[in-house]
Amino acid sequence: MNQDDGRNLRHKARMERKKALIDAKIAEADTDTGILLVLTGNGKGKSSSAFGMVARALGHGMKVGVVQFIKSRTDTGEEGFFSRLPGVEWHVMGDGFTWDTQNREQDIATANAAWETASRMLADPSFDLVVLDEMTYVMKYGYVQARRILDDLLARPEMQHVVVTGRGAPPELLDIADTVTDMQPVKHAFHSGVRAQKGVEW
Amino acid sequence: MNQDDGRNLRHKARMERKKALIDAKIAEADTDTGILLVLTGNGKGKSSSAFGMVARALGHGMKVGVVQFIKSRTDTGEEGFFSRLPGVEWHVMGDGFTWDTQNREQDIATANAAWETASRMLADPSFDLVVLDEMTYVMKYGYVQARRILDDLLARPEMQHVVVTGRGAPPELLDIADTVTDMQPVKHAFHSGVRAQKGVEW
Repeated sequence: MNQDDGRNLRHKARMERKKALIDAKIAEADTDTGILLVLTGNGKGKSSSAFGMVARALGHGMKVGVVQFIKSRTDTGEEGFFSRLPGVEWHVMGDGFTWDTQNREQDIATANAAWETASRMLADPSFDLVVLDEMTYVMKYGYVQARRILDDLLARPEMQHVVVTGRGAPPELLDIADTVTDMQPVKHAFHSGVRAQKGVEW
Repeated sequence: MNQDDGRNLRHKARMERKKALIDAKIAEADTDTGILLVLTGNGKGKSSSAFGMVARALGHGMKVGVVQFIKSRTDTGEEGFFSRLPGVEWHVMGDGFTWDTQNREQDIATANAAWETASRMLADPSFDLVVLDEMTYVMKYGYVQARRILDDLLARPEMQHVVVTGRGAPPELLDIADTVTDMQPVKHAFHSGVRAQKGVEW
Protein backbone atom coordinates (compact mmCIF):
# COMPACT_ATOMS: atom_id res chain seq x y z
CA MET A 1 0.00 0.00 0.00
CA ASN A 2 1.51 3.36 -0.94
CA GLN A 3 1.25 6.52 1.13
CA ASP A 4 -1.66 7.95 -0.84
CA ASP A 5 -3.74 4.81 -0.48
CA GLY A 6 -3.21 4.87 3.28
CA ARG A 7 -4.29 8.50 3.43
CA ASN A 8 -7.38 7.80 1.39
CA LEU A 9 -8.35 4.85 3.60
CA ARG A 10 -7.94 6.85 6.80
CA HIS A 11 -10.00 9.62 5.21
CA LYS A 12 -12.74 7.11 4.41
CA ALA A 13 -12.81 5.70 7.96
CA ARG A 14 -12.94 9.17 9.50
CA MET A 15 -15.72 10.28 7.21
CA GLU A 16 -17.74 7.09 7.88
CA ARG A 17 -17.71 7.94 11.60
CA LYS A 18 -18.67 11.55 10.87
CA LYS A 19 -21.50 10.47 8.59
CA ALA A 20 -22.93 8.15 11.27
CA LEU A 21 -22.97 10.99 13.80
CA ILE A 22 -24.57 13.47 11.43
CA ASP A 23 -27.14 10.95 10.16
CA ALA A 24 -28.20 10.26 13.76
CA LYS A 25 -28.66 13.97 14.43
CA ILE A 26 -30.70 14.39 11.26
CA ALA A 27 -32.92 11.43 12.20
CA GLU A 28 -33.65 13.07 15.55
CA ALA A 29 -34.79 16.31 13.91
CA ASP A 30 -38.12 15.23 12.45
CA THR A 31 -40.50 18.08 13.27
CA ASP A 32 -41.92 20.49 10.71
CA THR A 33 -42.96 23.89 11.97
CA GLY A 34 -42.93 27.54 11.06
CA ILE A 35 -39.64 29.03 12.16
CA LEU A 36 -38.99 32.48 13.60
CA LEU A 37 -35.53 33.40 12.41
CA VAL A 38 -33.73 36.51 13.66
CA LEU A 39 -30.70 37.84 11.78
CA THR A 40 -28.96 40.46 13.87
CA GLY A 41 -25.51 41.92 14.56
CA ASN A 42 -23.53 44.67 12.87
CA GLY A 43 -22.13 42.60 9.99
CA LYS A 44 -23.08 42.75 6.34
CA GLY A 45 -25.56 40.09 5.17
CA LYS A 46 -28.73 40.30 7.28
CA SER A 47 -31.20 41.70 4.75
CA SER A 48 -29.61 39.95 1.80
CA SER A 49 -29.97 36.65 3.66
CA ALA A 50 -33.67 37.32 4.15
CA PHE A 51 -34.01 38.06 0.43
CA GLY A 52 -32.19 34.82 -0.41
CA MET A 53 -34.88 33.01 1.57
CA VAL A 54 -37.53 34.89 -0.41
CA ALA A 55 -35.96 33.41 -3.57
CA ARG A 56 -35.84 29.94 -2.01
CA ALA A 57 -39.48 30.12 -0.94
CA LEU A 58 -40.58 31.34 -4.37
CA GLY A 59 -38.59 28.50 -5.91
CA HIS A 60 -40.81 26.12 -3.95
CA GLY A 61 -43.99 27.91 -5.05
CA MET A 62 -44.58 29.46 -1.62
CA LYS A 63 -46.23 32.83 -1.03
CA VAL A 64 -44.11 35.59 0.48
CA GLY A 65 -44.78 38.91 2.18
CA VAL A 66 -42.09 41.53 2.80
CA VAL A 67 -42.27 44.71 4.88
CA GLN A 68 -39.24 47.01 4.88
CA PHE A 69 -39.49 49.05 8.07
CA ILE A 70 -36.71 51.58 7.57
CA LYS A 71 -35.85 51.71 3.90
CA SER A 72 -37.58 54.47 1.96
CA ARG A 73 -35.78 54.21 -1.38
CA THR A 74 -37.54 52.11 -3.96
CA ASP A 75 -34.61 51.79 -6.37
CA THR A 76 -33.03 48.86 -4.56
CA GLY A 77 -32.13 45.77 -6.51
CA GLU A 78 -34.21 43.54 -4.25
CA GLU A 79 -37.36 45.60 -4.62
CA GLY A 80 -36.93 46.01 -8.37
CA PHE A 81 -36.37 42.32 -8.74
CA PHE A 82 -38.95 40.75 -6.42
CA SER A 83 -41.83 43.19 -6.24
CA ARG A 84 -43.04 42.50 -9.76
CA LEU A 85 -43.09 38.71 -9.36
CA PRO A 86 -46.26 36.72 -8.71
CA GLY A 87 -46.36 35.23 -5.22
CA VAL A 88 -44.77 38.27 -3.56
CA GLU A 89 -46.37 41.17 -1.71
CA TRP A 90 -43.67 43.78 -1.14
CA HIS A 91 -44.00 46.96 0.93
CA VAL A 92 -41.33 49.63 1.35
CA MET A 93 -42.81 51.46 4.34
CA GLY A 94 -39.88 53.21 5.99
CA ASP A 95 -38.87 56.85 6.05
CA GLY A 96 -35.15 56.30 6.41
CA PHE A 97 -33.27 55.91 9.66
CA THR A 98 -34.31 58.01 12.60
CA TRP A 99 -31.28 60.31 12.13
CA ASP A 100 -32.51 61.02 8.61
CA THR A 101 -36.03 61.98 9.60
CA GLN A 102 -34.98 63.57 12.94
CA ASN A 103 -38.63 63.53 13.86
CA ARG A 104 -39.63 61.10 16.55
CA GLU A 105 -43.39 61.50 16.24
CA GLN A 106 -43.25 60.93 12.50
CA ASP A 107 -41.07 57.85 13.01
CA ILE A 108 -43.60 56.41 15.46
CA ALA A 109 -46.48 56.96 13.04
CA THR A 110 -44.50 55.44 10.14
CA ALA A 111 -43.47 52.41 12.22
CA ASN A 112 -47.02 51.72 13.38
CA ALA A 113 -48.40 51.97 9.87
CA ALA A 114 -45.77 49.44 8.77
CA TRP A 115 -46.70 47.16 11.67
CA GLU A 116 -50.36 47.23 10.57
CA THR A 117 -49.28 45.67 7.28
CA ALA A 118 -47.00 43.17 9.02
CA SER A 119 -49.76 42.28 11.46
CA ARG A 120 -52.18 41.53 8.64
CA MET A 121 -49.66 39.17 7.01
CA LEU A 122 -48.92 37.46 10.34
CA ALA A 123 -52.65 36.74 10.69
CA ASP A 124 -52.97 35.33 7.18
CA PRO A 125 -52.12 31.63 6.73
CA SER A 126 -51.80 32.09 2.96
CA PHE A 127 -48.37 33.66 3.59
CA ASP A 128 -45.76 30.91 3.92
CA LEU A 129 -42.91 33.33 4.62
CA VAL A 130 -43.04 36.85 6.03
CA VAL A 131 -39.91 39.02 6.02
CA LEU A 132 -39.81 41.93 8.48
CA ASP A 133 -36.73 43.74 7.20
CA GLU A 134 -35.00 46.08 9.68
CA MET A 135 -37.83 45.57 12.15
CA THR A 136 -35.53 45.38 15.18
CA TYR A 137 -35.11 49.17 15.17
CA VAL A 138 -38.80 49.98 15.64
CA MET A 139 -38.90 47.49 18.51
CA LYS A 140 -35.64 48.65 20.09
CA TYR A 141 -36.64 52.34 20.01
CA GLY A 142 -40.12 51.52 21.31
CA TYR A 143 -41.79 52.96 18.22
CA VAL A 144 -44.13 49.96 18.15
CA GLN A 145 -45.08 48.36 21.47
CA ALA A 146 -42.99 45.25 22.07
CA ARG A 147 -46.01 43.42 23.50
CA ARG A 148 -47.94 43.96 20.29
CA ILE A 149 -45.07 42.67 18.15
CA LEU A 150 -44.50 39.59 20.31
CA ASP A 151 -48.21 38.75 20.48
CA ASP A 152 -48.63 38.95 16.71
CA LEU A 153 -45.53 36.80 16.14
CA LEU A 154 -46.62 34.18 18.68
CA ALA A 155 -50.20 34.00 17.35
CA ARG A 156 -49.20 33.49 13.72
CA PRO A 157 -50.18 30.38 11.72
CA GLU A 158 -48.27 27.28 12.80
CA MET A 159 -46.47 26.66 9.51
CA GLN A 160 -45.64 30.29 8.73
CA HIS A 161 -41.94 31.20 8.66
CA VAL A 162 -40.87 34.69 9.71
CA VAL A 163 -37.48 36.33 9.19
CA VAL A 164 -36.66 39.46 11.19
CA THR A 165 -33.54 41.46 10.36
CA GLY A 166 -31.74 44.40 11.95
CA ARG A 167 -29.03 45.34 14.42
CA GLY A 168 -29.50 45.03 18.16
CA ALA A 169 -32.42 42.60 18.29
CA PRO A 170 -34.04 43.00 21.72
CA PRO A 171 -33.70 40.05 24.16
CA GLU A 172 -37.46 39.41 24.30
CA LEU A 173 -37.44 38.86 20.53
CA LEU A 174 -34.47 36.49 20.78
CA ASP A 175 -36.31 34.59 23.52
CA ILE A 176 -39.18 33.61 21.24
CA ALA A 177 -37.00 33.01 18.15
CA ASP A 178 -36.22 29.49 16.92
CA THR A 179 -33.03 30.35 15.07
CA VAL A 180 -30.80 33.35 15.71
CA THR A 181 -27.66 34.34 13.84
CA ASP A 182 -25.42 37.12 15.08
CA MET A 183 -23.58 38.54 12.10
CA GLN A 184 -20.24 39.88 13.23
CA PRO A 185 -18.31 42.29 11.01
CA VAL A 186 -14.71 41.11 10.66
CA LYS A 187 -13.99 43.76 8.08
CA HIS A 188 -16.01 45.99 5.79
CA ALA A 189 -14.99 47.61 2.49
CA PHE A 190 -16.76 50.84 3.58
CA HIS A 191 -14.00 51.47 6.09
CA SER A 192 -11.46 51.35 3.27
CA GLY A 193 -13.30 54.12 1.46
CA VAL A 194 -15.48 51.97 -0.79
CA ARG A 195 -19.03 53.21 -1.03
CA ALA A 196 -22.10 50.96 -1.00
CA GLN A 197 -21.95 48.91 -4.19
CA LYS A 198 -24.97 48.26 -6.38
CA GLY A 199 -25.89 44.57 -6.36
CA VAL A 200 -24.06 43.97 -3.09
CA GLU A 201 -25.41 46.49 -0.59
CA TRP A 202 -28.61 47.60 -2.32
CA MET B 1 -43.31 73.13 26.78
CA ASN B 2 -44.72 69.80 27.89
CA GLN B 3 -42.67 66.68 28.58
CA ASP B 4 -43.30 65.13 25.16
CA ASP B 5 -42.18 68.24 23.30
CA GLY B 6 -38.96 68.26 25.29
CA ARG B 7 -38.32 64.63 24.49
CA ASN B 8 -38.95 65.20 20.79
CA LEU B 9 -36.58 68.20 20.71
CA ARG B 10 -33.79 66.29 22.44
CA HIS B 11 -34.36 63.45 20.01
CA LYS B 12 -34.03 65.86 17.10
CA ALA B 13 -30.80 67.39 18.41
CA ARG B 14 -29.28 63.96 19.02
CA MET B 15 -30.23 62.75 15.57
CA GLU B 16 -28.85 65.89 13.92
CA ARG B 17 -25.46 65.15 15.46
CA LYS B 18 -25.66 61.52 14.41
CA LYS B 19 -26.63 62.46 10.85
CA ALA B 20 -23.64 64.82 10.55
CA LEU B 21 -21.26 62.06 11.63
CA ILE B 22 -22.72 59.49 9.28
CA ASP B 23 -22.90 61.90 6.35
CA ALA B 24 -19.21 62.68 6.81
CA LYS B 25 -18.33 58.99 6.78
CA ILE B 26 -20.38 58.44 3.65
CA ALA B 27 -18.70 61.38 1.91
CA GLU B 28 -15.30 59.82 2.64
CA ALA B 29 -16.29 56.52 1.03
CA ASP B 30 -16.28 57.48 -2.62
CA THR B 31 -14.52 54.61 -4.39
CA ASP B 32 -16.27 52.11 -6.67
CA THR B 33 -14.65 48.73 -7.02
CA GLY B 34 -15.43 45.06 -7.24
CA ILE B 35 -15.70 43.65 -3.74
CA LEU B 36 -14.60 40.27 -2.48
CA LEU B 37 -17.06 39.38 0.23
CA VAL B 38 -16.59 36.33 2.47
CA LEU B 39 -19.50 35.02 4.52
CA THR B 40 -18.26 32.49 7.03
CA GLY B 41 -18.97 31.10 10.50
CA ASN B 42 -21.27 28.33 11.71
CA GLY B 43 -24.51 30.34 11.79
CA LYS B 44 -27.45 30.07 9.44
CA GLY B 45 -27.57 32.68 6.64
CA LYS B 46 -24.36 32.47 4.59
CA SER B 47 -25.65 30.96 1.34
CA SER B 48 -29.03 32.67 1.56
CA SER B 49 -27.24 35.99 1.90
CA ALA B 50 -25.29 35.27 -1.29
CA PHE B 51 -28.54 34.43 -3.07
CA GLY B 52 -30.10 37.67 -1.83
CA MET B 53 -27.23 39.48 -3.54
CA VAL B 54 -27.94 37.52 -6.71
CA ALA B 55 -31.48 38.92 -6.59
CA ARG B 56 -30.18 42.45 -5.94
CA ALA B 57 -27.75 42.22 -8.83
CA LEU B 58 -30.40 40.89 -11.20
CA GLY B 59 -32.68 43.72 -10.08
CA HIS B 60 -30.02 46.12 -11.39
CA GLY B 61 -29.72 44.23 -14.68
CA MET B 62 -26.33 42.77 -13.81
CA LYS B 63 -25.05 39.39 -14.99
CA VAL B 64 -24.48 36.72 -12.35
CA GLY B 65 -22.59 33.42 -12.20
CA VAL B 66 -23.06 30.87 -9.41
CA VAL B 67 -21.03 27.75 -8.65
CA GLN B 68 -22.21 25.53 -5.81
CA PHE B 69 -19.15 23.53 -4.71
CA ILE B 70 -20.68 21.04 -2.28
CA LYS B 71 -24.38 20.83 -2.96
CA SER B 72 -25.39 17.97 -5.24
CA ARG B 73 -29.18 18.17 -4.96
CA THR B 74 -30.89 20.18 -7.68
CA ASP B 75 -34.27 20.49 -5.96
CA THR B 76 -33.31 23.50 -3.88
CA GLY B 77 -35.51 26.56 -3.93
CA GLU B 78 -32.64 28.81 -4.98
CA GLU B 79 -31.68 26.69 -7.96
CA GLY B 80 -35.29 26.19 -9.07
CA PHE B 81 -35.90 29.89 -8.79
CA PHE B 82 -32.78 31.46 -10.27
CA SER B 83 -31.41 28.98 -12.76
CA ARG B 84 -34.17 29.55 -15.31
CA LEU B 85 -33.81 33.35 -15.29
CA PRO B 86 -31.99 35.29 -17.99
CA GLY B 87 -28.80 36.88 -16.70
CA VAL B 88 -27.86 33.91 -14.51
CA GLU B 89 -25.49 31.03 -15.14
CA TRP B 90 -26.00 28.48 -12.37
CA HIS B 91 -23.90 25.36 -11.74
CA VAL B 92 -24.53 22.76 -9.06
CA MET B 93 -21.18 20.98 -9.15
CA GLY B 94 -20.82 19.32 -5.76
CA ASP B 95 -21.11 15.71 -4.73
CA GLY B 96 -22.26 16.33 -1.20
CA PHE B 97 -20.09 16.85 1.83
CA THR B 98 -16.93 14.84 2.13
CA TRP B 99 -18.50 12.57 4.79
CA ASP B 100 -21.22 11.72 2.27
CA THR B 101 -18.86 10.74 -0.52
CA GLN B 102 -16.20 9.29 1.82
CA ASN B 103 -13.90 9.26 -1.17
CA ARG B 104 -11.10 11.78 -1.07
CA GLU B 105 -9.88 11.27 -4.63
CA GLN B 106 -13.37 11.73 -6.02
CA ASP B 107 -13.84 14.89 -3.91
CA ILE B 108 -10.61 16.33 -5.29
CA ALA B 109 -11.66 15.65 -8.88
CA THR B 110 -15.12 17.14 -8.27
CA ALA B 111 -13.70 20.24 -6.59
CA ASN B 112 -11.21 20.89 -9.38
CA ALA B 113 -13.89 20.53 -12.05
CA ALA B 114 -15.97 23.08 -10.15
CA TRP B 115 -12.99 25.41 -9.90
CA GLU B 116 -12.53 25.22 -13.69
CA THR B 117 -16.00 26.72 -14.06
CA ALA B 118 -15.37 29.32 -11.37
CA SER B 119 -12.05 30.21 -12.93
CA ARG B 120 -13.67 30.84 -16.29
CA MET B 121 -16.21 33.21 -14.71
CA LEU B 122 -13.48 35.03 -12.77
CA ALA B 123 -11.68 35.68 -16.04
CA ASP B 124 -14.79 36.99 -17.80
CA PRO B 125 -15.61 40.68 -17.29
CA SER B 126 -19.17 40.13 -18.50
CA PHE B 127 -19.95 38.64 -15.06
CA ASP B 128 -20.76 41.45 -12.61
CA LEU B 129 -21.21 39.10 -9.67
CA VAL B 130 -19.81 35.61 -9.11
CA VAL B 131 -21.03 33.51 -6.19
CA LEU B 132 -18.77 30.67 -5.02
CA ASP B 133 -21.14 28.88 -2.67
CA GLU B 134 -19.55 26.66 -0.02
CA MET B 135 -16.16 27.14 -1.64
CA THR B 136 -14.31 27.48 1.69
CA TYR B 137 -14.43 23.71 2.16
CA VAL B 138 -12.49 22.85 -0.99
CA MET B 139 -9.87 25.41 0.01
CA LYS B 140 -9.72 24.34 3.65
CA TYR B 141 -9.32 20.64 2.80
CA GLY B 142 -6.75 21.45 0.13
CA TYR B 143 -8.87 19.89 -2.63
CA VAL B 144 -8.05 22.83 -4.86
CA GLN B 145 -4.66 24.50 -4.44
CA ALA B 146 -5.00 27.67 -2.37
CA ARG B 147 -2.52 29.48 -4.62
CA ARG B 148 -4.66 28.81 -7.67
CA ILE B 149 -7.80 30.10 -5.93
CA LEU B 150 -6.11 33.24 -4.63
CA ASP B 151 -4.47 34.01 -7.99
CA ASP B 152 -7.76 33.72 -9.88
CA LEU B 153 -9.55 35.90 -7.33
CA LEU B 154 -6.84 38.57 -7.39
CA ALA B 155 -6.62 38.63 -11.18
CA ARG B 156 -10.36 39.06 -11.75
CA PRO B 157 -11.85 42.11 -13.54
CA GLU B 158 -11.67 45.26 -11.46
CA MET B 159 -15.42 45.83 -11.12
CA GLN B 160 -16.41 42.20 -10.58
CA HIS B 161 -17.95 41.36 -7.20
CA VAL B 162 -17.35 37.91 -5.70
CA VAL B 163 -19.15 36.33 -2.78
CA VAL B 164 -17.62 33.27 -1.13
CA THR B 165 -19.60 31.30 1.46
CA GLY B 166 -18.82 28.44 3.84
CA ARG B 167 -17.62 27.62 7.33
CA GLY B 168 -14.03 28.01 8.38
CA ALA B 169 -12.77 30.40 5.70
CA PRO B 170 -8.96 30.06 5.59
CA PRO B 171 -6.92 33.08 6.81
CA GLU B 172 -5.28 33.66 3.41
CA LEU B 173 -8.76 34.10 1.90
CA LEU B 174 -9.77 36.53 4.65
CA ASP B 175 -6.55 38.47 4.01
CA ILE B 176 -7.51 39.33 0.45
CA ALA B 177 -11.23 39.89 1.19
CA ASP B 178 -12.73 43.40 1.30
CA THR B 179 -15.68 42.55 3.51
CA VAL B 180 -15.94 39.61 5.88
CA THR B 181 -18.89 38.62 8.04
CA ASP B 182 -18.61 35.91 10.67
CA MET B 183 -22.07 34.45 11.18
CA GLN B 184 -22.35 33.19 14.73
CA PRO B 185 -25.12 30.75 15.66
CA VAL B 186 -26.90 32.00 18.78
CA LYS B 187 -29.51 29.29 18.50
CA HIS B 188 -30.77 26.96 15.78
CA ALA B 189 -34.15 25.24 15.44
CA PHE B 190 -32.37 22.06 14.34
CA HIS B 191 -31.17 21.51 17.89
CA SER B 192 -34.79 21.60 19.07
CA GLY B 193 -35.63 18.73 16.73
CA VAL B 194 -36.86 20.81 13.79
CA ARG B 195 -35.62 19.49 10.46
CA ALA B 196 -34.40 21.70 7.61
CA GLN B 197 -37.42 23.65 6.42
CA LYS B 198 -38.23 24.20 2.75
CA GLY B 199 -37.93 27.86 1.83
CA VAL B 200 -35.68 28.60 4.79
CA GLU B 201 -32.79 26.12 4.64
CA TRP B 202 -33.06 24.92 1.04
